[in-house]
Amino acid sequence: MFEKMIEKVSETHPLVHCITNYVTVNDVANMILAVNGSPIMADEIKEVEDITSITNALVINIGTLNQTKVKSMIKAGKKANELNHMVILDPVGAGASAYRTEVTHRLLQEIKFSVIKGNISEIKCIATGSNSTLGVDANIKDQVNENNIEEVISFAKKLSKQTGAVIAITSAIDIICNDKQAYLIHNGHPMMSCITGTGCMLAGVIAVYTAAHTNQILEATACAVTMMGIAGEIAYQKVTKENLGTAGFRTYLIDAMSIMNEETLKGGMKVEIQ
Amino acid sequence: MFEKMIEKVSETHPLVHCITNYVTVNDVANMILAVNGSPIMADEIKEVEDITSITNALVINIGTLNQTKVKSMIKAGKKANELNHMVILDPVGAGASAYRTEVTHRLLQEIKFSVIKGNISEIKCIATGSNSTLGVDANIKDQVNENNIEEVISFAKKLSKQTGAVIAITSAIDIICNDKQAYLIHNGHPMMSCITGTGCMLAGVIAVYTAAHTNQILEATACAVTMMGIAGEIAYQKVTKENLGTAGFRTYLIDAMSIMNEETLKGGMKVEIQ
Amino acid sequence: MFEKMIEKVSETHPLVHCITNYVTVNDVANMILAVNGSPIMADEIKEVEDITSITNALVINIGTLNQTKVKSMIKAGKKANELNHMVILDPVGAGASAYRTEVTHRLLQEIKFSVIKGNISEIKCIATGSNSTLGVDANIKDQVNENNIEEVISFAKKLSKQTGAVIAITSAIDIICNDKQAYLIHNGHPMMSCITGTGCMLAGVIAVYTAAHTNQILEATACAVTMMGIAGEIAYQKVTKENLGTAGFRTYLIDAMSIMNEETLKGGMKVEIQ
Repeated sequence: MFEKMIEKVSETHPLVHCITNYVTVNDVANMILAVNGSPIMADEIKEVEDITSITNALVINIGTLNQTKVKSMIKAGKKANELNHMVILDPVGAGASAYRTEVTHRLLQEIKFSVIKGNISEIKCIATGSNSTLGVDANIKDQVNENNIEEVISFAKKLSKQTGAVIAITSAIDIICNDKQAYLIHNGHPMMSCITGTGCMLAGVIAVYTAAHTNQILEATACAVTMMGIAGEIAYQKVTKENLGTAGFRTYLIDAMSIMNEETLKGGMKVEIQ
Repeated sequence: MFEKMIEKVSETHPLVHCITNYVTVNDVANMILAVNGSPIMADEIKEVEDITSITNALVINIGTLNQTKVKSMIKAGKKANELNHMVILDPVGAGASAYRTEVTHRLLQEIKFSVIKGNISEIKCIATGSNSTLGVDANIKDQVNENNIEEVISFAKKLSKQTGAVIAITSAIDIICNDKQAYLIHNGHPMMSCITGTGCMLAGVIAVYTAAHTNQILEATACAVTMMGIAGEIAYQKVTKENLGTAGFRTYLIDAMSIMNEETLKGGMKVEIQ
Repeated sequence: MFEKMIEKVSETHPLVHCITNYVTVNDVANMILAVNGSPIMADEIKEVEDITSITNALVINIGTLNQTKVKSMIKAGKKANELNHMVILDPVGAGASAYRTEVTHRLLQEIKFSVIKGNISEIKCIATGSNSTLGVDANIKDQVNENNIEEVISFAKKLSKQTGAVIAITSAIDIICNDKQAYLIHNGHPMMSCITGTGCMLAGVIAVYTAAHTNQILEATACAVTMMGIAGEIAYQKVTKENLGTAGFRTYLIDAMSIMNEETLKGGMKVEIQ
């Protein structure tokens, strides 16, 4: 599993166009660089098609969306579809406002996504239009756990069939699936939700990994999620040992991704396939 | 003083809506998370009322304001007032341009603030409309020191009476007051002004603390300012010991806030009440 | 060479107005503070003239440009020219889209720049309008090396004559020149391109150094570039020793700049003049 994926990324060095929020944009750029991709952030409507054309993947993140940016998202997304580029949707806070929900649904109508990544509330909002998201964090009752995991997998597979996208649900157990197969990832650490941007950074890593493995979108996405989970565990161990806090955790998370190799990945991964 | 305030915040986990600048927004989000709040940044006019409605406090920070954002600020502020949410004003650089001063005054007319936090220049600009601010730093002649402190306290109390808001003036000695009582806080370190965002992060912490203590706005604000001051001292000690610089200081500042407990607070605080 | 330049900056504490991208803006602000400058970010057209008027230098960085911001750039640039302030152009990604190229050329027509800093692709785009930039990184064939260095110096001197600006080309060997003289700087480390913002931060440092040395623009620019190179080497040594990654590198880079003194500069610099 995940054979030589890290190596392949180092060789191909994918270029990623991000239309993303201004809260975590710096972390996203640094994370893409950390995993041997190359980021370019551009949201002016006059240039998004040009920028998409010279890159290998597009990330659309609705974290701090506005009416102007939505137009650019759609224009870039259509261009990326035309060029068969990877297109990743990160529907940050979908469901938190009527506008975010409406934009999310509109993006899904206008653009074909390769991967849709979110917490369970965001993914549910995509499926149902329910307005249950509390801010940008998953509702506690929406956590994926041993009791409801079969139900969530079945739901995610259906959503994958409906959208044509790989679905990545981040939670205590991460679920990555297409309509046939699901990866369950038991890596990660709760401290990952004590900093902003873990999810946004992950979407960037998914873009890099899928762009380098366009015929293995499911596996590449699962690889990216697993790597982030392992990096979270490493970062947690380091901050605990050194008596640091959340800012140290963020530094060590990006650090761990930037020095991760196949040995660390193989040694640390806790992945099941269903 | 500040009895169980940290504990209360951990239990209530307040959600904070921030309409803030793009310079320090990531630090603000991470700081709010570090102190057990939950941030959501949103400034699109079509969603600010929805977002404000699901949160407990609103921070309005004019650091990189523009005409579009000002409309969203006013809309969100009015909604927050309707819902009796905490509303914090951080008038970054007020007085540095005619436009910032004008916007500051307009926000004060349209919105009722729970807390107004700034350096002495910014707070003076609020009171007088004087254009004395040099950039985003306090004029040196505007520093609060032992000689002028009584005068500044008296001025701040008057401003509190006039605006109905708790006034928080950050300086070598911080002054937090309503119209009757003032907390003087002798914590903090000059290195806090060697990084960007200390003030913006503080406004986020004030939002979290006041949202968890809506009947003790004055004390909760003073608690937040004291915690930041102590965190600044801890961070300074660490960078000195490890021979680091300003970027290390920023990491340790957020770290110190994320692991602060009542013992550290009680042991470190240097607070007088007048 | 670079005699007392660090000292002079500490004494004058220049104020820098930045109209810059939202990806690296926080790093730029922190870097300007780290080298004893004071940043103010403002791009609303109603205030850019006021803000420029109270500062000593203006940085225009087109990293995430948009139509609204371009108008503010031109207005601020014209005001800065009127006041004889230092004006630095950082044409991030020029050539990556037709729009960026067009805006770059328009800025050059409307504003007189003191310093233009970029990688070789960006600088070539300025000179020729060629659309060869791949994202925000230099094309590999556009790297400056021992074989083509004379050609690049000659090209840069011509461009300096044509624009009236000091030209700073960042590469394995950095070239800083006016129409008569070139500094070749052999400091720096490849890891500087593994994080976002190194170039943007450098433009901020150049603004601080030239604002403190308005009669030595060439030397002040070369000093800023040399300092960044040395800081990159120091940061690389630290992360290697401590087994850290790219996020640690970024922290140590800013740290090294914040504690750099004349001794470190003199001891580390590898500079030739041609």
